[in-house]
Amino acid sequence: MPSKAQQRYLLASAVAGVAAAIRIIRRRNMHTPPKPLPSNFPVTPADVVDAANRVKPHVHRTPVLTCNGLDELAGRSLKFKCEVFQRTGSFKIRGATNAALQAPENAPLVTHSSGNHAQALALAARSTGREAHVVMPRTAPAVKRAAVEGYGAQITLCEPTNAARAEAAQKKTEEVAGYFVHPSNEPRVISGQGTVAYEFLEQCADLDALVVPVGGGGLIGGIAVYAKWKRPSLKIIGAEPANVDDAYRSKQKGELVGHDDRDSVADGLKTLLGSNTWPIVRDLVDEIIIVDESEIKNATALIWGRMKLCIEPSAGVGVACVLSEAFRAKYPAEAYPTVGVVLCGGNLDLAKASQKLFA
Amino acid sequence: MPSKAQQRYLLASAVAGVAAAIRIIRRRNMHTPPKPLPSNFPVTPADVVDAANRVKPHVHRTPVLTCNGLDELAGRSLKFKCEVFQRTGSFKIRGATNAALQAPENAPLVTHSSGNHAQALALAARSTGREAHVVMPRTAPAVKRAAVEGYGAQITLCEPTNAARAEAAQKKTEEVAGYFVHPSNEPRVISGQGTVAYEFLEQCADLDALVVPVGGGGLIGGIAVYAKWKRPSLKIIGAEPANVDDAYRSKQKGELVGHDDRDSVADGLKTLLGSNTWPIVRDLVDEIIIVDESEIKNATALIWGRMKLCIEPSAGVGVACVLSEAFRAKYPAEAYPTVGVVLCGGNLDLAKASQKLFA
Repeated sequence: MPSKAQQRYLLASAVAGVAAAIRIIRRRNMHTPPKPLPSNFPVTPADVVDAANRVKPHVHRTPVLTCNGLDELAGRSLKFKCEVFQRTGSFKIRGATNAALQAPENAPLVTHSSGNHAQALALAARSTGREAHVVMPRTAPAVKRAAVEGYGAQITLCEPTNAARAEAAQKKTEEVAGYFVHPSNEPRVISGQGTVAYEFLEQCADLDALVVPVGGGGLIGGIAVYAKWKRPSLKIIGAEPANVDDAYRSKQKGELVGHDDRDSVADGLKTLLGSNTWPIVRDLVDEIIIVDESEIKNATALIWGRMKLCIEPSAGVGVACVLSEAFRAKYPAEAYPTVGVVLCGGNLDLAKASQKLFA
Repeated sequence: MPSKAQQRYLLASAVAGVAAAIRIIRRRNMHTPPKPLPSNFPVTPADVVDAANRVKPHVHRTPVLTCNGLDELAGRSLKFKCEVFQRTGSFKIRGATNAALQAPENAPLVTHSSGNHAQALALAARSTGREAHVVMPRTAPAVKRAAVEGYGAQITLCEPTNAARAEAAQKKTEEVAGYFVHPSNEPRVISGQGTVAYEFLEQCADLDALVVPVGGGGLIGGIAVYAKWKRPSLKIIGAEPANVDDAYRSKQKGELVGHDDRDSVADGLKTLLGSNTWPIVRDLVDEIIIVDESEIKNATALIWGRMKLCIEPSAGVGVACVLSEAFRAKYPAEAYPTVGVVLCGGNLDLAKASQKLFA
């Protein structure tokens, strides 16, 4: 006869076992009907589903908006996923939060970024009760530094080169025994960004194609992994500035190549595909379409004027793509009547902008 | 014994009679519990309710958005009624449509305006199958003329003075046997603009005060007539640029006065209260609060930056008001924890603006 304590232990074990079994069954049901998962990627559709559940309390479920004027211009129905309304003003909070919630206990978060990921990681760290260290080039605008510091992160300045950035981040990670969160190539970031597609496909049952701006490939990577599993017929089109066309040229060549260090008004998209995002872009993204600087500026101003949404030019790249001749020719409205466009962010230096506007 | 045909007729009559009775009862119920209506205004709460039903198929029910960042700055909960997403980019389509739907059969619509009302009237005319004639000062920006012409209205240019405007509009009205729709003083326009409050109070049950930009007074007039009847304890605050403070000074003096012809970045609010809007503002609006040009610019940029909404400076006036010292002092957050702000429009010369931005 077992003792009272042994009885309690056995009962607790039995309860825990049953609960675990239920969790496994629920998880399986959530993912059924089982479809073959792509096996050669560091991120799976299940990771995106898990990320969606994980980040849900921390991020906004952003609305999908439409605009008659844009539909007329495009000659089809456009659905805009408004990550411009996301916390910190871009989708980046999704991946940063997903990574923060899985980082080793008490480890400070470390990253290098001068853009939206820096703010996102800083807020994700604050939300999850961690320290954050952000390496930024010493040329980063004061307004961006202030935003990052406003979320309580500590900034380390470095020379404005990719090598200096990576080196400084590595050093800082070692120094603080931190957890490094790459802005786009980190698998937990990729699956976090994929939650954009998780929501978008729930919100719109009728999408024929999805247009997603491409920088480091974290956003389109996570989206493609999830969306191609959930709805295999959906076309996934990457939109990239012609000035920084590494994804386009990599797809053309069939291998990962860089781009000349040219500039683009879409400053969020100047980063390069990485070891984890490139295989996804290679195998699951149907096509990359490039747009030039004036197309980007016009499309950005169009969304401001017609939809009254303050998008940043990186988001304008997706809009320019869907309005481009190349897109219309390859994906005609008759065959693709409904196209989703991710308005990925809205962070501009508006203090400067409004001074110019009202000057 | 009635014939088959007679039976059918009697049955149809009975059905129609019952349906009519139900309609009447429903309508009555919609307005009950009956409250005393203000009797000395050309617009009644019932007019606003009728307008809401009348314009419903023609206008958007605009969303109410919130923003944590703005709540923190304001120290209370702010609810933003986004007329910036309205058709033609401002609330003006509500009043114009309400007038168009009640104009004499086949009469062309005539107005004078260089701003949002011009576009709204042009679209309202097109939607209701009428001609539209718009008198604009010859100094009006080409982009505004193009927008009005884009909706199919005919433009008559005049000298840029109020007298020349009114004269040209009267002449045109006689010439085409038209129906003149004043931008703010026309009762059907006032009741149409009041539908903003009809929706807003349906969408937010917990408003303690409503802040509304004041130009000619059509918007705040319609809102005050409806809201003070529907929810008498709700405070209605007008927000006006200090540079064009005729409503403020009229309230102070207790009689309708003009303002010096100074300029304001909030160009939509440079018009004057009229014979129909002044009594409403005098009796039903709790207070007018004025804000200076730099407050308006800052508040406008704040909404761009934090909410990612491209509002025009006239809408920024309401935001500046709710953030002002005067508002905080008179309507402290403890007593007025939830305040509604009407973001009345988002029409800017964005072609020019984006050129400046991306220069």
